[in-house]
Amino acid sequence: MPSRLYTVVVDSRDPHQLARFWAAALDYRVVYEAEDEVVVARDEDTYPGMIFVPVPESKVVKNRLHLDLNPDDRDAEVERLVGLGATRADVGQGPEVTWVVLRDPEGNEFCVLRPREGGV
Amino acid sequence: MPSRLYTVVVDSRDPHQLARFWAAALDYRVVYEAEDEVVVARDEDTYPGMIFVPVPESKVVKNRLHLDLNPDDRDAEVERLVGLGATRADVGQGPEVTWVVLRDPEGNEFCVLRPREGGV
Repeated sequence: MPSRLYTVVVDSRDPHQLARFWAAALDYRVVYEAEDEVVVARDEDTYPGMIFVPVPESKVVKNRLHLDLNPDDRDAEVERLVGLGATRADVGQGPEVTWVVLRDPEGNEFCVLRPREGGV
Repeated sequence: MPSRLYTVVVDSRDPHQLARFWAAALDYRVVYEAEDEVVVARDEDTYPGMIFVPVPESKVVKNRLHLDLNPDDRDAEVERLVGLGATRADVGQGPEVTWVVLRDPEGNEFCVLRPREGGV
């Protein structure tokens, strides 16, 4: 039987702080926290959540993997996420796209889409 | 209402080929394919799946985000994934860890865990 997708792991300069940003972004909560790992999920039984692990190095190039978020109201959600510590990003997306590109507090790019079906 | 996590997007030199690797890895299938986007999911109604988009640049540093996979049999699954085009990777994980680090055909690191509850 093939693998199941278990979780997304994020290398972090400060996993505790970054986990709190993403928990607030997704309405998840911290379900496990240790020095070397912080896990967020909607609840203790919900996986994949996200896992944040410490690394010594900072982000240096545009990420190869990024998350797309599905909000109820794109622009209101962008404002909320900026209030949580996200920043607007220009990765060359141009003015025509229907999504907004943001960076999390450690610079990881992510996109806020127009509302659509789907998502967890 | 906060955002839902919609999908994982992967920058790809060859999104068509890379999508097929990940579809085979996760028992997903290609549910949408265009020149600028390939979507894989378990079925047409299952999101988040994964989305592969073309970029001109290759991977240059260790990814900040990576996926953990949950197999039924770690070592058998590693062999299967290597047969699909994955390669073993040394990211400094050392000999003591319980997971195996692989790279997909474009070099993106991912981990194959020991079997556990959870995953989609």
